Amino acid sequence: MTSPRIILLAHGSSDKRWCETFETLAEPTLKSIDNARVAYMELAEPSMDTVISEGVAEGATVFTIIPLFLAAGRHLRKDVPAMVEELEKAHGATIQLAPPIGENPLLGQAIRDVVMLQLEQTPA
Amino acid sequence: MTSPRIILLAHGSSDKRWCETFETLAEPTLKSIDNARVAYMELAEPSMDTVISEGVAEGATVFTIIPLFLAAGRHLRKDVPAMVEELEKAHGATIQLAPPIGENPLLGQAIRDVVMLQLEQTPA
Repeated sequence: MTSPRIILLAHGSSDKRWCETFETLAEPTLKSIDNARVAYMELAEPSMDTVISEGVAEGATVFTIIPLFLAAGRHLRKDVPAMVEELEKAHGATIQLAPPIGENPLLGQAIRDVVMLQLEQTPA
Repeated sequence: MTSPRIILLAHGSSDKRWCETFETLAEPTLKSIDNARVAYMELAEPSMDTVISEGVAEGATVFTIIPLFLAAGRHLRKDVPAMVEELEKAHGATIQLAPPIGENPLLGQAIRDVVMLQLEQTPA
């Protein structure tokens, strides 16, 4: 079995600037991991359906969705798992849904580092 | 002038588990920075008003709000700035609103690290 294709899942927004922030956030991951993609749950393209369709057309069968969410609310507990089930049926693919990035302790450390930088920039 | 008091601002949710994830995310910052607090924009306590009231009662006059949001949408572009203006008037405090954490490149690097860990844990 080959490595799963990584899909970074963002909520999505009709505000182009919102999506651009996520594209910038995803850049280091997309540079480090072959075939990784960003997908949006709603309100922006590409959707999960688009990204999985394209992956399947290229021969991929296993995907891992990593939610770019700080915590799991209704979307990650209900909406996304339901969408994943539909997508697996529609595309004959295996799709693993990882925990949201905010549940990883690395995020808490990054937040502390951001705050420390912010404090250094504040005139005392 | 003393250092501003740091307020980590999360959206808030009626789901206790959602708030607990943010409390865990905030822990490294709260351990590193004196008087830093978490506050919620809505749906959970403590609110920004509660945290700023308590800070002012303790003698603080300057606060920096750091949004624990990955990107700026309507809340951070409109709702929160309006709330900050009201809070400054109500409490006679100076409140700086920092960019959301997701606009700092450190977050993109942390996301890449989380994804690499996730890939290592996936059976190949």
